[in-house]
Amino acid sequence: MSKLFEELAGLDKLIHEPARLAIMTALSTCQSADFLAVQRLTGLTGGNLSVHLSKLEDAGLITLEKQFVDKRPRTQVQITGQGRRAIEKHWLQLENLRADVQKWKPE
Amino acid sequence: MSKLFEELAGLDKLIHEPARLAIMTALSTCQSADFLAVQRLTGLTGGNLSVHLSKLEDAGLITLEKQFVDKRPRTQVQITGQGRRAIEKHWLQLENLRADVQKWKPE
Repeated sequence: MSKLFEELAGLDKLIHEPARLAIMTALSTCQSADFLAVQRLTGLTGGNLSVHLSKLEDAGLITLEKQFVDKRPRTQVQITGQGRRAIEKHWLQLENLRADVQKWKPE
Repeated sequence: MSKLFEELAGLDKLIHEPARLAIMTALSTCQSADFLAVQRLTGLTGGNLSVHLSKLEDAGLITLEKQFVDKRPRTQVQITGQGRRAIEKHWLQLENLRADVQKWKPE
Protein backbone atom coordinates (compact mmCIF):
# COMPACT_ATOMS: atom_id res chain seq x y z
CA MET A 1 0.00 0.00 0.00
CA SER A 2 1.40 3.41 -0.92
CA LYS A 3 2.42 5.74 1.86
CA LEU A 4 0.23 8.46 0.37
CA PHE A 5 -2.78 6.17 0.40
CA GLU A 6 -2.27 5.64 4.11
CA GLU A 7 -2.00 9.41 4.59
CA LEU A 8 -5.19 9.98 2.61
CA ALA A 9 -7.06 7.22 4.41
CA GLY A 10 -5.86 8.65 7.72
CA LEU A 11 -7.32 12.11 7.09
CA ASP A 12 -10.40 12.77 9.18
CA LYS A 13 -13.05 13.86 6.66
CA LEU A 14 -15.24 15.23 9.43
CA ILE A 15 -12.57 17.81 10.28
CA HIS A 16 -11.44 18.35 6.68
CA GLU A 17 -14.74 20.00 5.69
CA PRO A 18 -13.82 23.71 5.36
CA ALA A 19 -16.25 25.22 7.88
CA ARG A 20 -15.41 22.59 10.51
CA LEU A 21 -11.69 22.99 9.79
CA ALA A 22 -12.10 26.70 10.57
CA ILE A 23 -14.25 26.11 13.67
CA MET A 24 -11.85 23.54 15.13
CA THR A 25 -8.81 25.70 14.36
CA ALA A 26 -10.47 28.67 16.03
CA LEU A 27 -11.46 26.68 19.12
CA SER A 28 -7.95 25.27 19.42
CA THR A 29 -6.69 28.81 20.07
CA CYS A 30 -8.98 29.23 23.07
CA GLN A 31 -10.49 26.89 25.61
CA SER A 32 -14.07 27.93 25.23
CA ALA A 33 -16.16 30.35 23.18
CA ASP A 34 -19.72 31.57 22.98
CA PHE A 35 -21.88 30.25 20.13
CA LEU A 36 -22.51 33.80 18.89
CA ALA A 37 -18.79 34.57 18.84
CA VAL A 38 -18.14 31.50 16.69
CA GLN A 39 -21.03 32.52 14.46
CA ARG A 40 -19.61 36.02 14.03
CA LEU A 41 -16.17 34.59 13.25
CA THR A 42 -17.35 32.12 10.64
CA GLY A 43 -20.20 34.16 9.18
CA LEU A 44 -22.34 31.00 9.07
CA THR A 45 -26.08 31.10 9.71
CA GLY A 46 -27.14 29.89 13.15
CA GLY A 47 -28.74 26.80 11.68
CA ASN A 48 -25.69 25.90 9.63
CA LEU A 49 -23.35 26.41 12.55
CA SER A 50 -25.59 24.26 14.80
CA VAL A 51 -25.40 21.37 12.34
CA HIS A 52 -21.61 21.57 12.16
CA LEU A 53 -21.30 21.80 15.96
CA SER A 54 -23.61 18.82 16.48
CA LYS A 55 -21.44 16.67 14.20
CA LEU A 56 -18.30 17.74 16.06
CA GLU A 57 -19.99 17.07 19.40
CA ASP A 58 -21.15 13.61 18.29
CA ALA A 59 -17.54 12.80 17.40
CA GLY A 60 -16.35 13.87 20.86
CA LEU A 61 -14.31 16.77 19.50
CA ILE A 62 -16.21 19.55 21.28
CA THR A 63 -18.77 19.91 24.04
CA LEU A 64 -21.78 22.22 24.00
CA GLU A 65 -23.09 23.60 27.26
CA LYS A 66 -26.29 25.61 27.56
CA GLN A 67 -26.18 28.25 30.25
CA PHE A 68 -28.44 31.10 31.32
CA VAL A 69 -26.79 34.51 31.49
CA ASP A 70 -29.12 37.31 32.63
CA LYS A 71 -32.00 34.85 32.12
CA ARG A 72 -31.08 34.44 28.46
CA PRO A 73 -29.87 31.10 27.08
CA ARG A 74 -26.31 31.00 25.82
CA THR A 75 -24.43 28.07 24.36
CA GLN A 76 -20.79 27.69 25.29
CA VAL A 77 -18.64 25.78 22.82
CA GLN A 78 -15.59 24.03 24.21
CA ILE A 79 -12.92 21.95 22.51
CA THR A 80 -12.09 18.60 24.12
CA GLY A 81 -8.61 17.16 24.55
CA GLN A 82 -9.44 14.72 21.76
CA GLY A 83 -10.57 17.62 19.57
CA ARG A 84 -7.40 19.60 20.20
CA ARG A 85 -5.23 16.61 19.32
CA ALA A 86 -7.35 15.91 16.22
CA ILE A 87 -7.08 19.41 14.72
CA GLU A 88 -3.34 19.67 15.44
CA LYS A 89 -2.85 16.26 13.84
CA HIS A 90 -4.95 17.26 10.84
CA TRP A 91 -2.87 20.34 9.97
CA LEU A 92 0.29 18.26 10.40
CA GLN A 93 -1.13 15.58 8.10
CA LEU A 94 -1.96 18.19 5.45
CA GLU A 95 1.57 19.60 5.64
CA ASN A 96 3.07 16.10 5.40
CA LEU A 97 0.80 15.14 2.50
CA ARG A 98 1.79 18.28 0.62
CA ALA A 99 5.50 17.77 1.27
CA ASP A 100 5.42 14.07 0.37
CA VAL A 101 3.46 14.60 -2.82
CA GLN A 102 5.66 17.48 -3.94
CA LYS A 103 8.68 15.17 -3.81
CA TRP A 104 7.02 12.89 -6.36
CA LYS A 105 8.64 12.31 -9.74
CA PRO A 106 6.57 10.12 -12.08
CA GLU A 107 8.74 7.40 -13.59
CA MET B 1 -19.90 39.47 5.96
CA SER B 2 -16.97 38.11 7.93
CA LYS B 3 -13.61 37.80 6.21
CA LEU B 4 -13.44 34.14 7.22
CA PHE B 5 -16.80 33.47 5.60
CA GLU B 6 -15.46 34.86 2.34
CA GLU B 7 -12.38 32.66 2.70
CA LEU B 8 -14.53 29.59 3.36
CA ALA B 9 -16.90 30.38 0.52
CA GLY B 10 -13.92 30.90 -1.77
CA LEU B 11 -12.44 27.45 -1.14
CA ASP B 12 -12.89 25.14 -4.12
CA LYS B 13 -14.56 22.03 -2.67
CA LEU B 14 -13.72 20.02 -5.77
CA ILE B 15 -10.00 20.42 -5.04
CA HIS B 16 -10.37 20.25 -1.26
CA GLU B 17 -11.42 16.58 -1.32
CA PRO B 18 -8.32 14.73 0.01
CA ALA B 19 -7.61 12.42 -2.94
CA ARG B 20 -8.04 15.23 -5.47
CA LEU B 21 -5.92 17.55 -3.31
CA ALA B 22 -3.14 14.95 -3.50
CA ILE B 23 -3.59 14.33 -7.23
CA MET B 24 -3.54 18.04 -8.09
CA THR B 25 -0.54 18.71 -5.83
CA ALA B 26 1.34 15.82 -7.44
CA LEU B 27 0.52 16.97 -10.98
CA SER B 28 1.58 20.51 -10.14
CA THR B 29 5.14 19.23 -9.60
CA CYS B 30 5.31 17.81 -13.11
CA GLN B 31 3.72 18.72 -16.41
CA SER B 32 2.34 15.33 -17.28
CA ALA B 33 2.14 11.83 -15.79
CA ASP B 34 0.95 8.40 -16.76
CA PHE B 35 -2.35 7.18 -15.26
CA LEU B 36 -0.60 4.16 -13.75
CA ALA B 37 2.04 6.36 -12.11
CA VAL B 38 -0.67 8.48 -10.48
CA GLN B 39 -2.42 5.29 -9.40
CA ARG B 40 0.76 3.93 -7.82
CA LEU B 41 1.35 7.25 -6.05
CA THR B 42 -2.13 7.55 -4.60
CA GLY B 43 -2.82 3.87 -4.00
CA LEU B 44 -6.37 4.38 -5.31
CA THR B 45 -8.16 1.71 -7.31
CA GLY B 46 -8.29 2.33 -11.05
CA GLY B 47 -12.03 2.94 -10.90
CA ASN B 48 -11.76 5.39 -8.04
CA LEU B 49 -8.93 7.29 -9.68
CA SER B 50 -10.88 7.46 -12.97
CA VAL B 51 -13.83 9.07 -11.20
CA HIS B 52 -11.62 11.68 -9.54
CA LEU B 53 -9.80 12.44 -12.81
CA SER B 54 -13.08 12.82 -14.71
CA LYS B 55 -14.29 15.41 -12.23
CA LEU B 56 -11.02 17.32 -12.49
CA GLU B 57 -11.18 17.13 -16.29
CA ASP B 58 -14.78 18.36 -16.36
CA ALA B 59 -13.67 21.38 -14.32
CA GLY B 60 -10.89 22.15 -16.79
CA LEU B 61 -8.15 21.49 -14.22
CA ILE B 62 -6.51 18.58 -16.07
CA THR B 63 -6.61 16.98 -19.49
CA LEU B 64 -6.64 13.25 -20.19
CA GLU B 65 -5.12 11.98 -23.38
CA LYS B 66 -5.30 8.38 -24.53
CA GLN B 67 -2.27 7.19 -26.44
CA PHE B 68 -1.04 3.88 -27.77
CA VAL B 69 2.43 2.83 -26.64
CA ASP B 70 3.61 -0.52 -28.04
CA LYS B 71 0.02 -1.09 -29.17
CA ARG B 72 -1.23 -0.79 -25.59
CA PRO B 73 -3.51 2.04 -24.52
CA ARG B 74 -2.09 4.49 -22.00
CA THR B 75 -3.71 7.51 -20.48
CA GLN B 76 -1.60 10.59 -19.98
CA VAL B 77 -2.74 12.98 -17.25
CA GLN B 78 -1.76 16.61 -17.64
CA ILE B 79 -2.43 19.62 -15.46
CA THR B 80 -3.78 22.73 -17.22
CA GLY B 81 -2.70 26.30 -16.52
CA GLN B 82 -6.03 26.81 -14.78
CA GLY B 83 -5.39 23.68 -12.70
CA ARG B 84 -1.93 24.81 -11.68
CA ARG B 85 -3.22 28.20 -10.58
CA ALA B 86 -6.12 26.55 -8.73
CA ILE B 87 -4.01 24.17 -6.64
CA GLU B 88 -1.44 26.85 -5.79
CA LYS B 89 -4.27 29.18 -4.76
CA HIS B 90 -5.89 26.43 -2.68
CA TRP B 91 -2.82 25.78 -0.54
CA LEU B 92 -2.37 29.52 -0.07
CA GLN B 93 -6.02 29.85 0.97
CA LEU B 94 -5.62 27.05 3.52
CA GLU B 95 -2.52 28.73 4.96
CA ASN B 96 -4.33 32.08 5.15
CA LEU B 97 -7.43 30.54 6.70
CA ARG B 98 -5.31 28.85 9.36
CA ALA B 99 -3.34 32.00 10.12
CA ASP B 100 -6.42 34.24 10.24
CA VAL B 101 -8.38 31.86 12.46
CA GLN B 102 -5.48 31.38 14.85
CA LYS B 103 -5.40 35.13 15.51
CA TRP B 104 -9.01 34.97 16.73
CA LYS B 105 -9.83 35.91 20.31
CA PRO B 106 -13.49 35.43 21.23
CA GLU B 107 -14.83 38.50 22.95
